[in-house]
Amino acid sequence: MSQYMDFFARLAHESADRKREFLELGRIAGRFPAATTAENGEIAVWCSNDYLGMGQHPAVLEAMHRAVDEYGAGSGGSRNIGGTHHHHVLLERELADLHGKEEALLFTSGYSANEGSLSVLAGRIDGCEVFSDQGNHASIIDGLRHSGARKHIFRHNDRAHLEELLAAADPDVPKLIVTESVHSMGGDIAPLAELADLAKRYGAVTFLDEVHAVGMYGPQGAGIAAREGLASSFTVIMGTLAKGFGMTGGYVAGPAVLIDAIRAHARSFVFTTALPPSVAAGALAAVRHLRGSEEERRRLTANASLLHGLLRERSLPFLSDQSHIVSALVGDERRAKGMSRLLLERYGIYVQAVDAPSVRVGEEILRIAPSAVHRPEEVREFAAALDTVWTGLDGPRTTAAV
Amino acid sequence: MSQYMDFFARLAHESADRKREFLELGRIAGRFPAATTAENGEIAVWCSNDYLGMGQHPAVLEAMHRAVDEYGAGSGGSRNIGGTHHHHVLLERELADLHGKEEALLFTSGYSANEGSLSVLAGRIDGCEVFSDQGNHASIIDGLRHSGARKHIFRHNDRAHLEELLAAADPDVPKLIVTESVHSMGGDIAPLAELADLAKRYGAVTFLDEVHAVGMYGPQGAGIAAREGLASSFTVIMGTLAKGFGMTGGYVAGPAVLIDAIRAHARSFVFTTALPPSVAAGALAAVRHLRGSEEERRRLTANASLLHGLLRERSLPFLSDQSHIVSALVGDERRAKGMSRLLLERYGIYVQAVDAPSVRVGEEILRIAPSAVHRPEEVREFAAALDTVWTGLDGPRTTAAV
Repeated sequence: MSQYMDFFARLAHESADRKREFLELGRIAGRFPAATTAENGEIAVWCSNDYLGMGQHPAVLEAMHRAVDEYGAGSGGSRNIGGTHHHHVLLERELADLHGKEEALLFTSGYSANEGSLSVLAGRIDGCEVFSDQGNHASIIDGLRHSGARKHIFRHNDRAHLEELLAAADPDVPKLIVTESVHSMGGDIAPLAELADLAKRYGAVTFLDEVHAVGMYGPQGAGIAAREGLASSFTVIMGTLAKGFGMTGGYVAGPAVLIDAIRAHARSFVFTTALPPSVAAGALAAVRHLRGSEEERRRLTANASLLHGLLRERSLPFLSDQSHIVSALVGDERRAKGMSRLLLERYGIYVQAVDAPSVRVGEEILRIAPSAVHRPEEVREFAAALDTVWTGLDGPRTTAAV
Repeated sequence: MSQYMDFFARLAHESADRKREFLELGRIAGRFPAATTAENGEIAVWCSNDYLGMGQHPAVLEAMHRAVDEYGAGSGGSRNIGGTHHHHVLLERELADLHGKEEALLFTSGYSANEGSLSVLAGRIDGCEVFSDQGNHASIIDGLRHSGARKHIFRHNDRAHLEELLAAADPDVPKLIVTESVHSMGGDIAPLAELADLAKRYGAVTFLDEVHAVGMYGPQGAGIAAREGLASSFTVIMGTLAKGFGMTGGYVAGPAVLIDAIRAHARSFVFTTALPPSVAAGALAAVRHLRGSEEERRRLTANASLLHGLLRERSLPFLSDQSHIVSALVGDERRAKGMSRLLLERYGIYVQAVDAPSVRVGEEILRIAPSAVHRPEEVREFAAALDTVWTGLDGPRTTAAV
């Protein structure tokens, strides 16, 4: 039995410094971003990915209720074995149309969408070489790793470095460039026009992760590439239903031949149960609503901009002002966690400290997500509370304007 | 641009023989297994994984409605960043309790649960060697592959072969045995007592996939290991919410130290949005209902047993009579697809033909899933229809009793 106990002891050692305590939240019907906790009573959530509040939108909830009544709970099978229902098909058509692509394909999560799609796109082309941004999300890294393709990493959003790598590669090998439009942790935006230009010059296929952009930016919420008039320059657009659209699930949209290959070969797609009909129905309602309404995007932009200004006035450092992801740079794990705890205990404000492996050690942040449903006075109260806590725990200040 | 087009051409070639056409289903409120199709009108589904009909159970739908009203659509974040709600915590407690384990952990799918958990368990122990059943599901294969651990494959349910491999291994290396209790495609059941005995003798940790068993077998629906009085002999029990429980999502249950490690390190857990509160709430209602009700299990067993008998009488070959998964062995892809099409067109019966990569080439099946909600007369009509179609397409017959 010795190696049996050894197994446990080694895993315990491995995880000792990574014990995760998740804050358990209750919600108050229709009052998001308000939530409840056992220890701190009613709180305000400042780190949700439900950036536009669509997770509480009446049209979304109504669509879910109707689908539960008409279709029941689960989908009952994989897409190939009894799990394809009308809402899946309608939602895929809607997403393809949103991005101006031939087809779209749903996955159970954004993680699965990236992991599964990139495994296929990079893995099924003999000799394919991948050019991947250094800051890409874990799901992209995993998909590329599982593909076994040769990988070149370019410095985050550094087009000159990307060009250097492209120029050094064999001109005849198939090439795939992978990046995120809005960076998940930094909130900064990739130089899409320049990336598209490089892709064209070097004949590379492009895969653009827009998970923190779809619903929030561009005409009809089609994302940053669409905002820049570049949607057609990116071969595959990848998005999520779990953030701007307030639901859950991920997707890719692109040319039929690539989507067909992913549909046939992506193991995280083939070997999994399709999303519940109510999830697909709720997401469909959210996508349709946001194609026709600018109001949520306008409010999100206004709140983000207000917060950027307030933090600047107070010399509180944050990583980027290019999007609604406002990551206050603490740079120390213990201090970041302390600030998160104080904000919760003293002000009823929930903002999660993000540490490794989501960011690098020494680059710990408070990842603040002002949403379309926070009121401007709440943004001001938030900034004042953060300032006080920041002072109390001696957080770093900017010396010049950001 | 040459390699750009080359990329497309190569992927098109790769997928030409694997083009997937999914049957699009509508449903009729409260009348599952009835469904609707555009071409064939009302049909009966005979290949759903909603084996017990819990996807239509009033308690499940009511719990979903309530959670949609009280919590909204999506969870809003990963478990670590704002996505943990009461229902997630309650459901994990309920599942741990169901299996008599210290803790349980939810994933967005069974695929993610296997892939993520096994990546960690096999990958984070230096020198760990894995002993994996040859018939294991794609999600297990992928998790083990991504772990990088040394792998020994034993012939499907062959305890003698497993012992041979265990005996040949270094006695001092940590060992992990991974198998399924009810096989996903064959419907046969693993010799759990003998596997548990081997694990004990060789000091191996065991990981038992019970996705086609939880809800359906054992006291309170705890699965095959529980039915055999062996739940405590298996270190980790893995299950799904998408089959017997009628919802979606996957989970693992086991000792706290192992679950902690998975929670901290499994990338498909860490880097993904938590299940929607309504999904967790619906699953919780299903698990609780099935812990207290034997009726669904009794009907499922009776229908499976009736179908086994009817197929035997007609000399229609099927892989196993040990469970409710009744896989009629066609052994030819084109013929299996033809039978599936004829059943749908002539009889309004939907049963999917399963081909590679889910089964090996030459072992194509019609994977029939009689459920707790089919009526006995429907089972009889189904067997008669299958017999006629089988004759029409000259399917193989058994020469002796199965």
